[in-house]
Amino acid sequence: MRKIEHLGIAVKNLETSKELFSRLLGKDSYKEEQVGAEGVQTAFFLLGETKIELLEALSADSPIAKFLEKKNEGLHHIAIAVDDIYSEMDRLKKEGFELLNDLPKKGADDKLVVFLHPRSTNGVLVELCQDLETEKE
Amino acid sequence: MRKIEHLGIAVKNLETSKELFSRLLGKDSYKEEQVGAEGVQTAFFLLGETKIELLEALSADSPIAKFLEKKNEGLHHIAIAVDDIYSEMDRLKKEGFELLNDLPKKGADDKLVVFLHPRSTNGVLVELCQDLETEKE
Repeated sequence: MRKIEHLGIAVKNLETSKELFSRLLGKDSYKEEQVGAEGVQTAFFLLGETKIELLEALSADSPIAKFLEKKNEGLHHIAIAVDDIYSEMDRLKKEGFELLNDLPKKGADDKLVVFLHPRSTNGVLVELCQDLETEKE
Repeated sequence: MRKIEHLGIAVKNLETSKELFSRLLGKDSYKEEQVGAEGVQTAFFLLGETKIELLEALSADSPIAKFLEKKNEGLHHIAIAVDDIYSEMDRLKKEGFELLNDLPKKGADDKLVVFLHPRSTNGVLVELCQDLETEKE
């Protein structure tokens, strides 16, 4: 586990929140990306080695729509960069953590990602992510 | 604003959660500290340039006790490292953000800290922090 790759923040309106975080951080977001599999539109800011990812739901069945309904806007997940997602998944399963997928899937920002269930991680939704370009064969 | 200095996570039992995060991150916490002003006992892990700070309430009127009662365990706040907390407070007030204190106060880990009210920051409790040793005179 190398670093906090990004923090995911659930927002109701991406345009409004992009403007808000620009004023907060004193800089603009550097890219936007739609992630169809998760039903979200995302915008990214960079702060040191960590990205801040704003997440707006594109449909009512998106995990972000459900989160907003239950908890309102706020911190949604933290993502940790790993070098080898398969070996980390294996290690964490042996340690008793509960993975939300058996295999990593394609996430935003050209990454392979997997989530740990927050009931095994103190209520924190934790994502592991690995750059696709460094994927082991 | 330089980097995500730390992520604060509210936990019910520091010993149990220290053990859990050791297994999650594959490393041990490197220090513990009591912060009387906030009524918390904290434990720190390092991941890249960012710390993970576990927070256990020491009394029923600690902000962490109230958070646990309302929201249960999970992500509590993000802290952003700044070089000059006074000028950032001034800038953010002018930008319309709501500060929880008029003056920075002494936080954990030898820092001057101030919090922004989550209602002005998309539901995210944001802390600004500056190393005391770099405090401007």
